[in-house]
Amino acid sequence: MENTDLQDYSHKRYNILTGEWVLVSPHRAKRPWQGQNEAVSNEVRPSYDETCYLCAGNTRINGEINPKYQDVFVFTNDFAALQSDSKSFSVEDGLLLAQSETGICKVICFSPDHSKSLADMAPNDIQKVVYAWQREYKELADNPDINYVQIFENKGAVMGCSNPHPHGQIWSQSTLPNEVEKKNTQQLAYFNKNNSSLLGDYLIQELEKQERIIFENDSFVVLIPFWAIWPFEAMIVPKKHQANILELNDTEALLYAEAISVLTKAYDKLFNTSFPYSSGIHQAPTNGEENNHWHWHMSFYPPLLRSATVKKFMVGYEMFGTPQRDITAETAVKMIRELI
Amino acid sequence: MENTDLQDYSHKRYNILTGEWVLVSPHRAKRPWQGQNEAVSNEVRPSYDETCYLCAGNTRINGEINPKYQDVFVFTNDFAALQSDSKSFSVEDGLLLAQSETGICKVICFSPDHSKSLADMAPNDIQKVVYAWQREYKELADNPDINYVQIFENKGAVMGCSNPHPHGQIWSQSTLPNEVEKKNTQQLAYFNKNNSSLLGDYLIQELEKQERIIFENDSFVVLIPFWAIWPFEAMIVPKKHQANILELNDTEALLYAEAISVLTKAYDKLFNTSFPYSSGIHQAPTNGEENNHWHWHMSFYPPLLRSATVKKFMVGYEMFGTPQRDITAETAVKMIRELI
Ligand SMILES: O=P(O)(O)O[C@H]1O[C@H](CO)[C@@H](O)[C@H](O)[C@H]1O
Ligand SMILES: O=P(O)(O)O[C@H]1O[C@H](CO)[C@@H](O)[C@H](O)[C@H]1O
Repeated sequence: MENTDLQDYSHKRYNILTGEWVLVSPHRAKRPWQGQNEAVSNEVRPSYDETCYLCAGNTRINGEINPKYQDVFVFTNDFAALQSDSKSFSVEDGLLLAQSETGICKVICFSPDHSKSLADMAPNDIQKVVYAWQREYKELADNPDINYVQIFENKGAVMGCSNPHPHGQIWSQSTLPNEVEKKNTQQLAYFNKNNSSLLGDYLIQELEKQERIIFENDSFVVLIPFWAIWPFEAMIVPKKHQANILELNDTEALLYAEAISVLTKAYDKLFNTSFPYSSGIHQAPTNGEENNHWHWHMSFYPPLLRSATVKKFMVGYEMFGTPQRDITAETAVKMIRELI
Repeated sequence: MENTDLQDYSHKRYNILTGEWVLVSPHRAKRPWQGQNEAVSNEVRPSYDETCYLCAGNTRINGEINPKYQDVFVFTNDFAALQSDSKSFSVEDGLLLAQSETGICKVICFSPDHSKSLADMAPNDIQKVVYAWQREYKELADNPDINYVQIFENKGAVMGCSNPHPHGQIWSQSTLPNEVEKKNTQQLAYFNKNNSSLLGDYLIQELEKQERIIFENDSFVVLIPFWAIWPFEAMIVPKKHQANILELNDTEALLYAEAISVLTKAYDKLFNTSFPYSSGIHQAPTNGEENNHWHWHMSFYPPLLRSATVKKFMVGYEMFGTPQRDITAETAVKMIRELI
C-alpha cells in the first residue's frame, strides 16, 4: 500500500548505502521553467569518423594508432588523472593534510561503431563489454598498488563527455574514494549486525512492494531506489549477494547485459533523445580484505528532468545543503515502466 | 616554503571542515578540450525589464505585485521547495526511512537594477544585502520550527539560475542538511579537543604562509582553501571567531561587503565574463543549542575552468568517487590575485 504522504508533502529520505539524505519536494514539479535549455544534438553520426580518436585504425593525440578492433577496445588514458609512476609523498603541516595518490586510468571503447550507444547495442554485444569490465577489474585487482577500481561512463556532452564515440572509463587507485568509503561503512555495519547483505535485504523489500521496480529477469532487478537523487536515477542490482562482477557466470553476464539494454533503451524513449547520464559500478575494494559485506550494483545518474532540453540543476541549495528532487521516485518509475 | 610535490604529482587533500577528500591532478590541466562549450551571454541587460518577475512594480506569476523597492526586496518563494504548513509524518518501514521536512523559502533581490550583479554594486549597496541577510537570519532563528538557515545565490544560467535579475535565496528548515551536519561534526570535535575555532586556527596558518590568500582587510580574509574542489573556489572568512552573521557590527558588515565586492570583481575579470557561481553562507544552526564551535564563512563554487565557455564537469568519477580538480589551489590563487 503506497504511502500517499510521500507523494504530497516535502520530506527527506534516507540513503541506506551512504548514510545521507535527499530532500524531496513533490509539489515543486509544477513550477514553470524559465532557465537554461540544453542543446539537443539530432546529428546522425556516421559509423566511422576519421577525426575521432577512438575509432578503429585512427591515430590518437599521443601518436599511437588504435588497432582495427572488432568489439571492445581498452587502452590506458592518454591524459590520466592518476598515474602509476607518480611520486609517493605526504603532507602533514598543521591543518594542511595531503597524501599522494597513484593509480591507473583506462578508456574502454564499447564498440567500433561510432554511431552507437549502449542503448543501440544488442545484449550479446553489451555482454562483451561486461567481459571487458571483468578482465580489467581482475587485472587491476591483482595489482598490489591498486585498492579500488571505479568503472564508469559519462554519456552526452551535458555530462562532460568530450567524444560521442561509445566509451566508458576505469579509474583505479591506491585508496578508497569518498563515496566508496561511505558505502563500505554502511554495508559493513549492517553485515556485522545482521549477517546479511544490506542491499540484498533491501531488494527483498522492494520486490515485495513492487512500487519502484522498473524491470527484472532471473538474476537482476532494475529499480529506482527509494532515496534516488536524480529525477530518473536507477540502479541495477544482482539478486544474488555478489561482492564484485567477477562472480558473474556467463548466463548472469548476459542477463546483466539485458538489464543494461532494457534500461538504456527506455531512457532514450523517455524524452525521445539519446539520454545523457553518468553511470558507475560500485563494488568491493581490491584491497585484499574480506569484503563479504559488499553487494555490487550499477547506478545511473541522468540529469534530464522535464524534456530533452531541461535538466535538473544541482546547485546552490544542493551544494551547500542536501540534494533536492522534485518528482518522486514513484512517479519516475511509472513513467519509465510504460516505455519497456 | 611551498611544497612543490603538490604542484607536480597527483594527490588528495583533506577538507578539515567536511572530513572528505578532493583528488588533485596538477599535470592534467594540459589535456586538450574537445567537449561541450557553454553559451556566453554578452547581452547587455536594461536596468528595468517589464517581463522580469523580480523587477520593482512588476507582477509575479501568482498575481502578487512587487513593491517599488529602492534597494533590497525579500519575499517568500512562490514555488518553495519547503513549506511551513506542510504535514508532519515519518516513515520507518524496514529499510525505507523518511521524515517530513518543513521550512520557509525566500527570494532576496539584491538591487532593483535588473542589469547589475554583486560585482557591479558598490560595497555600500552590498552592505544593505548583508543587513537583509542578518534580518532574515534573525527572524528565522526566532521561529521555533526553523533549526537551520541556508543563504545562497545561484548566479548565471549555467548554475540553474532562471532569472538574471540580481537575487539570492534563503531556504530554512527544521533539520540540518547533509553538508551542515558534516561541518557541525568536524568543528565540534576540534572545538572540544582544542577549545578554539577550527577555521580560526586554519586562518592563522594561512595568513602565515601567504600561499592561498586572495585578499584581506581588517576583519576578513578571502582565500582559496587548501582543499578547494572547484577550479576557482574561494572562501570569505571573518578573522574573529563568530558563529553567525548576527555578530557583525556595522563596520564589519561593510568590510564583509568589501570582501564580496573585491572577489566578485576579480572573478568577472578572470575570463572577461559575468562569472557564474553558486555561493552560500555556512553558519551556526538556529536550533537553540550552544553553537560556539561554529565559525561562519561564505564559499563561492564557480564552475568555469579554462575560459568563459569551458567549465569543469563534476561527473562520472566525481559522482561515484571523489571530486577531482586539475589546476591546483595555488595556481588559481596566483591567477586571481593579479586581477585585484
Ligand atoms: O529556485 P530556482 O532558482 O528556480 O532553482 C535553482 O535553484 C534551486 C536551489 O539550488 C535548485 O533546486 C534548482 O534545481 C535550480 O534550478
Ligand atoms: O575524462 P574526460 O571524459 O575527458 O572528462 C570527463 O570525465 C572526467 C571523469 O568523470 C571528469 O573529471 C571531467 O571533468 C569530465 O570532463
